[in-house]
Amino acid sequence: MMGISLKGNLLVGQSGGVTAVINSSLAGVIHEACEHGVIDRVYGARHGIEGVLSQEFVDLEAFPPSQISGLRCTPGAALGSCRYKLRDSDYERIIDVFRAHNIRYFIYIGGNDSADTAHRVAQFAVECGHELRVIAVPKTIDNDLPITDHCPGYGSAARFIALATMDAGLDTESMRRFDPVKIIETMGRNAGWLTAASALGKRDDSQAPHLIYVPERPISADAFLRDVDDVYRRLGYVVVVVAETVRGQDGQHVGLIEDESQTDSFGHPRVTATGQMLCSLVTQRLGLKARWDKPGTIQRVSTACVSMVDEEEAYLTGRHAVKSAVAGASDKMVILIREPGDDYQCRLELADLQDIANREKVLPQEYINEEGNFVTDEFRKYACPLLGTPLPEHVRLDGLTVPRLL
Amino acid sequence: MMGISLKGNLLVGQSGGVTAVINSSLAGVIHEACEHGVIDRVYGARHGIEGVLSQEFVDLEAFPPSQISGLRCTPGAALGSCRYKLRDSDYERIIDVFRAHNIRYFIYIGGNDSADTAHRVAQFAVECGHELRVIAVPKTIDNDLPITDHCPGYGSAARFIALATMDAGLDTESMRRFDPVKIIETMGRNAGWLTAASALGKRDDSQAPHLIYVPERPISADAFLRDVDDVYRRLGYVVVVVAETVRGQDGQHVGLIEDESQTDSFGHPRVTATGQMLCSLVTQRLGLKARWDKPGTIQRVSTACVSMVDEEEAYLTGRHAVKSAVAGASDKMVILIREPGDDYQCRLELADLQDIANREKVLPQEYINEEGNFVTDEFRKYACPLLGTPLPEHVRLDGLTVPRLL
Repeated sequence: MMGISLKGNLLVGQSGGVTAVINSSLAGVIHEACEHGVIDRVYGARHGIEGVLSQEFVDLEAFPPSQISGLRCTPGAALGSCRYKLRDSDYERIIDVFRAHNIRYFIYIGGNDSADTAHRVAQFAVECGHELRVIAVPKTIDNDLPITDHCPGYGSAARFIALATMDAGLDTESMRRFDPVKIIETMGRNAGWLTAASALGKRDDSQAPHLIYVPERPISADAFLRDVDDVYRRLGYVVVVVAETVRGQDGQHVGLIEDESQTDSFGHPRVTATGQMLCSLVTQRLGLKARWDKPGTIQRVSTACVSMVDEEEAYLTGRHAVKSAVAGASDKMVILIREPGDDYQCRLELADLQDIANREKVLPQEYINEEGNFVTDEFRKYACPLLGTPLPEHVRLDGLTVPRLL
Repeated sequence: MMGISLKGNLLVGQSGGVTAVINSSLAGVIHEACEHGVIDRVYGARHGIEGVLSQEFVDLEAFPPSQISGLRCTPGAALGSCRYKLRDSDYERIIDVFRAHNIRYFIYIGGNDSADTAHRVAQFAVECGHELRVIAVPKTIDNDLPITDHCPGYGSAARFIALATMDAGLDTESMRRFDPVKIIETMGRNAGWLTAASALGKRDDSQAPHLIYVPERPISADAFLRDVDDVYRRLGYVVVVVAETVRGQDGQHVGLIEDESQTDSFGHPRVTATGQMLCSLVTQRLGLKARWDKPGTIQRVSTACVSMVDEEEAYLTGRHAVKSAVAGASDKMVILIREPGDDYQCRLELADLQDIANREKVLPQEYINEEGNFVTDEFRKYACPLLGTPLPEHVRLDGLTVPRLL
């Protein structure tokens, strides 16, 4: 990977659904880029590849250092994000813009779709003979990129969901005499990683969540109602966490698919009201009052729930992307490889973008229980370290009953 | 208020919708009760007044001190909550139970409905000649109790909503090119206090939220769409925060009212999907993609967003209730009175329960702007100190544009 020294400017962009720590990766890119003499200026593209096409660049070195460091605790994409699928005619324009601005390093922070964009740009630059080093930085709360152990952004969203489920579990337990069923609807597209994270604060069988339904396993109304009824009879209350994209046995989404105008430009459908549908089912068929929470986009950008491990890794993947590009790498994504052993530790490496682009890594079978309604201990071992500092322990006032006197 | 010394046991219960700090009030009650020799034992009623009727008591002094202190960071009602309206036949039973267990102090932590329950129990005890001191401790995220400056529980829920709106605002701003409109649906029954709190992290006109709709002001579809369109044209994205119970000009809820079986025992209807309805309106009439978040019960119990001021006040109101009862007060609720001056400080006093029971304090007119689509600076001055530590400042990468070269 010892490449020839390549002098020029660096351009960084952000793409896709945002996270709580995507700006930490941006800060890592800027900090690292400023340390390399071969990089003249550090530019940011507004709204990812769209800002490349329209030459909307911002001079990132001109901001005061405190502002760049402040990115590490600012959720969302400070440069603006995009969800734009490149057309054939766009590639030439991109390379023209890169030539005009002497862009020799292109760092793209994003998920599967963004990896595809970065890969195509890298290939086209080679075809055109414009020497360019392209490195993608992984980012997605969905945790669905292949090869890498996990994705920056996931740990913080997972922490939000784990905490919210603990809190909402105590809420429902407290109010079980009149509001016994709660359904929490999570994001996650086709992968159940985030939904599964709801289990990470559970310390014994009686605590929430009691049932988890992920998109990897289709559910049937009858089995779902039997599950809910079983838990209700046993504990007197039920907390269910369900992916908004969970499907029925017929392969159709349980939630409503919004009209075509709501499909994004990559054709991903937007599913909604899954929790509401399941609540109605519980009320109508089991006669139990049910409530649903849909934290929606709040789950992916919660400042209060950032995982310190996730934030640090997001920052370091940004730095590693620049380091690797300066050393000669291109058409790669930074990946996290977990070291063996009991103590959690990851090292950073690179993978070919073509092996990542447009591929999804769903939950492996061994992370889902046989009944398809919960996760396994293997999943907990995998995901717990990603949440950073330990989750709080809540107090329960069990037992110590005073004898009845009447 | 120097009453006669009254020896006997103390019973504490929790009632109504739970909060992030209702257990802090419980800890305050227990700690204070243990300091008074006239109080023999400290019992907790499971599920509020229901546990009184069924004699489900727990011996709170028997728990290790660490567990009682741990209540201060445990959301939900550790004793269990209830939403039970007393029948005429219940009062005699309650007094019989109090006599059998020598209950002389009854502390009830709850909102408007619970104040009514406490008031009736206090009155019936007088009629029966059972000497009993009844003090209510205020608790509600809705902040809708009269007389008191504010209610424990509100500050923490307000902090959650303020933070969530800041975070979700950056999320929408980042993704405005493809997801320009976000609607966040909040709780609050008939009062807009919690919805209004979404404004507390906003530092300039361009930041979220841009529009706030509270139940105190009916909205019309046309005015709502005009508001959204105006902000969109000006900023390119729109974050709306709306109370789930907002009504149209016809007095009907904008959201769907769930079927009768979902009405609680006090007859409060449950409204749902307000955010979803408004999203559809925006998409259909303005042709803009819109998303909605419904944090639901997560907003009232979020451990990560507890306001330190709120937690401390919840604890101290619990202590004050016991102190006041020991000193001879009864049929009262603890209230918070804000001291004049720029530095926030509250003192604790008592108000007659009959002046609080079943009354609601909605947002005063001077806290809502003329257009009925935002809050005023007076509201911000009122609510900001209740959130505890200052809200984070996020970084924005405005300006510093690189000139186009093509």
